[in-house]
Amino acid sequence: MKKSTFPTPQDAEAAFYEALEAGELEAMMEVWAEDEEIVCVHPGGARLAGYDQVRESWAQIFASGQRLKVHVSNQVVLSGMMLAVHSVHENILVQGEPRSRPPVAATNVYLRTGNGWRMILHHGSPAPQTPRAPAESPKILH
Amino acid sequence: MKKSTFPTPQDAEAAFYEALEAGELEAMMEVWAEDEEIVCVHPGGARLAGYDQVRESWAQIFASGQRLKVHVSNQVVLSGMMLAVHSVHENILVQGEPRSRPPVAATNVYLRTGNGWRMILHHGSPAPQTPRAPAESPKILH
Repeated sequence: MKKSTFPTPQDAEAAFYEALEAGELEAMMEVWAEDEEIVCVHPGGARLAGYDQVRESWAQIFASGQRLKVHVSNQVVLSGMMLAVHSVHENILVQGEPRSRPPVAATNVYLRTGNGWRMILHHGSPAPQTPRAPAESPKILH
Repeated sequence: MKKSTFPTPQDAEAAFYEALEAGELEAMMEVWAEDEEIVCVHPGGARLAGYDQVRESWAQIFASGQRLKVHVSNQVVLSGMMLAVHSVHENILVQGEPRSRPPVAATNVYLRTGNGWRMILHHGSPAPQTPRAPAESPKILH
């Protein structure tokens, strides 16, 4: 199968969330750069580094068969020539659950490669529903 | 006071963690770009966007008077001409506590400005002590 090419970081991001919703491992890994320096932090999870660890984590997640609908909002874009950084809220509805989970704050980083834009970092963490000052939350360390 | 100039992303990162340890708001905000597009997610916290929200959050954190020692490890660097992305583990010892908290996985993004490198994004989240596959953790959504 020929690898997809993503002409913009936005195209790569769309493909990332489509693969997440579809639960398709090969489509997910097409979005990622094949690199030992890629990084993925799933919400509540340890930092994973390198293509093999990242692929294995998505394989395990998709193996659960849980289906998700993901609505991405509140995008902030920070772009350079070679790297693009997107900060978004992921509003995730798990199939069979009546309402969305609290949003996930996600940082997505894309690299311009010889074959289009690829994801090189995904960092997700559960975010309180209502933005509040950190000092009000007991969980905050800094 | 003249603003500091950070010739490399690494210099900006060093200044960020020095300011965090010192609890000095002005030193902390010297590290950040003065921009409406900057983003900060404190561990367990909501996403904050824009200079004012980010400054206010650090002011509240430092007002607690809690002193920290931060040892940064496991750095992965993804660099472009204008943007640099560092993924690190923050090993934080809170003064008065016998041992370090579980590490924080942090994504730090720096922008090359006319006045040296500045932080434009900080995303921290508590990471399990031992890296494990996400599917083993009950907290993982994806």
